[in-house]
Amino acid sequence: MATQGQVITCKAAVAWEPNKPLVIEDVQVAPPQAGEVRVKILFTALCHTDAYTWSGKDPEGLFPCILGHEAAGIVESVGEGVTEVQPGDHVIPCYQAECRECKFCKSGKTNLCGKVRSATGVGVMLSDHKSRFSVNGKPIYHFMGTSTFSQYTVVHDVSVAKIDPKAPLDKVCLLGCGVPTGLGAVWNTAKVEPGSIVAVFGLGTVGLAVAEGAKAAGASRIIGIDIDSKKYDVAKNFGVSEFVNPKDHDKPIQQVLVDLTDGGVDYSFECIGNVSVMRAALECCHKGWGTSVIVGVAASGQEISTRPFQLVTGRVWKGTAFGGFKSRSQVPWLVEKYLKKEIKVDEYITHNLTLGEINKAFDLMHEGGCLRCVLATDT
Amino acid sequence: MATQGQVITCKAAVAWEPNKPLVIEDVQVAPPQAGEVRVKILFTALCHTDAYTWSGKDPEGLFPCILGHEAAGIVESVGEGVTEVQPGDHVIPCYQAECRECKFCKSGKTNLCGKVRSATGVGVMLSDHKSRFSVNGKPIYHFMGTSTFSQYTVVHDVSVAKIDPKAPLDKVCLLGCGVPTGLGAVWNTAKVEPGSIVAVFGLGTVGLAVAEGAKAAGASRIIGIDIDSKKYDVAKNFGVSEFVNPKDHDKPIQQVLVDLTDGGVDYSFECIGNVSVMRAALECCHKGWGTSVIVGVAASGQEISTRPFQLVTGRVWKGTAFGGFKSRSQVPWLVEKYLKKEIKVDEYITHNLTLGEINKAFDLMHEGGCLRCVLATDT
Ligand SMILES: NC(=O)c1ccc[n+]([C@@H]2O[C@H](COP(=O)([O-])OP(=O)(O)OC[C@H]3O[C@@H](n4cnc5c(N)ncnc54)[C@H](O)[C@@H]3O)[C@@H](O)[C@H]2O)c1
Ligand SMILES: NC(=O)c1ccc[n+]([C@@H]2O[C@H](COP(=O)([O-])OP(=O)(O)OC[C@H]3O[C@@H](n4cnc5c(N)ncnc54)[C@H](O)[C@@H]3O)[C@@H](O)[C@H]2O)c1
Ligand SMILES: [Zn+2]
Ligand SMILES: [Zn+2]
Ligand SMILES: [Zn+2]
Ligand SMILES: [Zn+2]
Repeated sequence: MATQGQVITCKAAVAWEPNKPLVIEDVQVAPPQAGEVRVKILFTALCHTDAYTWSGKDPEGLFPCILGHEAAGIVESVGEGVTEVQPGDHVIPCYQAECRECKFCKSGKTNLCGKVRSATGVGVMLSDHKSRFSVNGKPIYHFMGTSTFSQYTVVHDVSVAKIDPKAPLDKVCLLGCGVPTGLGAVWNTAKVEPGSIVAVFGLGTVGLAVAEGAKAAGASRIIGIDIDSKKYDVAKNFGVSEFVNPKDHDKPIQQVLVDLTDGGVDYSFECIGNVSVMRAALECCHKGWGTSVIVGVAASGQEISTRPFQLVTGRVWKGTAFGGFKSRSQVPWLVEKYLKKEIKVDEYITHNLTLGEINKAFDLMHEGGCLRCVLATDT
Repeated sequence: MATQGQVITCKAAVAWEPNKPLVIEDVQVAPPQAGEVRVKILFTALCHTDAYTWSGKDPEGLFPCILGHEAAGIVESVGEGVTEVQPGDHVIPCYQAECRECKFCKSGKTNLCGKVRSATGVGVMLSDHKSRFSVNGKPIYHFMGTSTFSQYTVVHDVSVAKIDPKAPLDKVCLLGCGVPTGLGAVWNTAKVEPGSIVAVFGLGTVGLAVAEGAKAAGASRIIGIDIDSKKYDVAKNFGVSEFVNPKDHDKPIQQVLVDLTDGGVDYSFECIGNVSVMRAALECCHKGWGTSVIVGVAASGQEISTRPFQLVTGRVWKGTAFGGFKSRSQVPWLVEKYLKKEIKVDEYITHNLTLGEINKAFDLMHEGGCLRCVLATDT
């Protein structure tokens, strides 16, 4: 390939400062070093973590940076020693790496690989602790080890999942974050059994994926809870069988759910990022066995609390990151499930825009009618 | 039997008022009604829940009452319809009932039977919501459905475990609460696997039983944490392999443990009842899989808290009541294990007194050298 080994100049949306509109810039993307992969991003969606860091509220956010972590593309070139992907492979960048060698990967108990975290956590690549992005010589930080709001990005080889080339990239880009998070929260973290009563707090993409996962797991009742009653119409298509709007009740929402379910739900999922709702989600669980999974990401510094009696009487409090999926191993499997029509993806896409319209896409996130907005990067 | 069907007058330690010395009284114990069992208590130990309710801090505490829930005795008579025990059977009263019929018992997921709770929670018997104890006609409340600080007590048939008559009652009375709680926290609630690193906060009877259970489960390191360094000597005999006194460190204890274990422990157990320690116990767990079990009972109104990120990155927060053991089914099994010398019991008994000396026994609980004090009731 003509570009291999060369710096590529391409368009990317740069966040120069917190809370200021992103700027489409000509960005220089350096060639991949040993153990790195340069990916031509074709489609990227937006997720709340992008908006959170962009807002400036994330104390670990670094600027200027290129955000984005839910995307799909094609390998342009690979650095030395990269064996598992090669130019032309269709891939999904994975903010949650999987090296198969570290203590975490080998534990068999978690998907939280530790291999590249020391670098991705501070916006650089592991080999030289430098960025591969620059604008007129000024380095631009990476984000979550993915930085997909760019026509080209460089990722670690442990952070890229090779997928079936038959999969439409404008759809399966969603399998980079929100949808797997919801499905995996149910299948891997909670392990919902047939007949279970499930409560889903927050019916955005993540909550809807939880509902979908719970339905596939055979849940008998799937109760959706949202402060926006319009969400119920869409949610029905994802398996939500009952709806509760906390605003319609004077009682605390946990009490409403306990009353509705003769003692509480078997499993609950917080898909909002609100610490008060996290407490409610725990406390609406059935005594003796109810398990609550925190999926939403709360703002830095916020804390959850409850009476310890809630746990002593048998409730379990858990959380999940990327739904517990091992990224490189399981994202390709999710793509196959999508191709076999066993999981939805298209249904989460409510808007399609281009990278140049990214600020409009951020605005859309705050509108009730938007689940996922997919940006084509080629324009 | 001569006493069958008759009111029995016997000695019992009555708590007339919170925080006032118990008074040995002549108490009238009514005959057991349908579904009830009258037990001649031979030995009873003291546990923290007795002291907590006695102190007046328990908002659900009712006075006057007869405390006590860790004991052993012999069935004196049974009420109508009682089939599983008969006069002469050796038994351990179980504050945690097991009816085998309720939603909880049938779930297969918890030991928290709900059958008699509505009565035992308010100090009475289920059939008529009355007490079987009185002093000169004045009713005295039951406590935890057991009230073992009495020469005779009346319990529900679902709250009594029939045990091997070969077992010495002055020892196995401990299998009514503290020791099973610690063992079961490890075996049933956490399900510690061989090779695990375990942290035990608080090295009283419950914490030592956790250590013993962890050793039996094959834990590779058992780290005991106590603010009383003298506890380590005894704790070694129960399997504690390392000791940390938080007072010896400037860093928060969770950080000390994370440093000591290259990232955190696999399992931690809070056996104190201190909400700050509960947080430390969670936060010293290894990212990705560490599980913390709350065993200690905190004072009413107190709350636990942490950052949700602790759970989102894979830690699990649980609790346990009576170690998850199904009382009537499993207490007899624990007695057998004791008889086969597979679990310790004698080693937890540091003091022997009589029921008449019960106030001295309460004082002893606050002394570092006391684990369990067993009272003989026949004097
Ligand atoms: N743990 C992970 O790995 C992971 C991965 C992806 C996303 N997330 C997090 O999941 C959360 C949800 O993401 P999303 O994309 O579905 O978000 P979203 O904004 O599309 O959906 C949130 C929903 O919650 C509802 N809501 C807000 N406040 C509420 C309240 N008090 N009670 C009930 N409903 C309320 C909103 O109306 C909305 O429908 C975010 O916090 C995101 O950061 C976590
Ligand atoms: N969940 C249940 O079913 C159940 C059953 C029985 C007992 N319990 C509870 O378990 C707890 C322990 O019972 P026990 O009989 O072993 O009590 P105990 O008082 O004998 O032991 C507590 C130990 O904790 C130590 N300690 C106190 N504060 C500490 C701190 N800040 N850091 C470290 N160590 C500290 C003390 O020195 C002592 O050694 C109590 O809260 C009791 O109510 C719970
Ligand atoms: Zn995301
Ligand atoms: Zn790894
Ligand atoms: Zn007890
Ligand atoms: Zn029951």
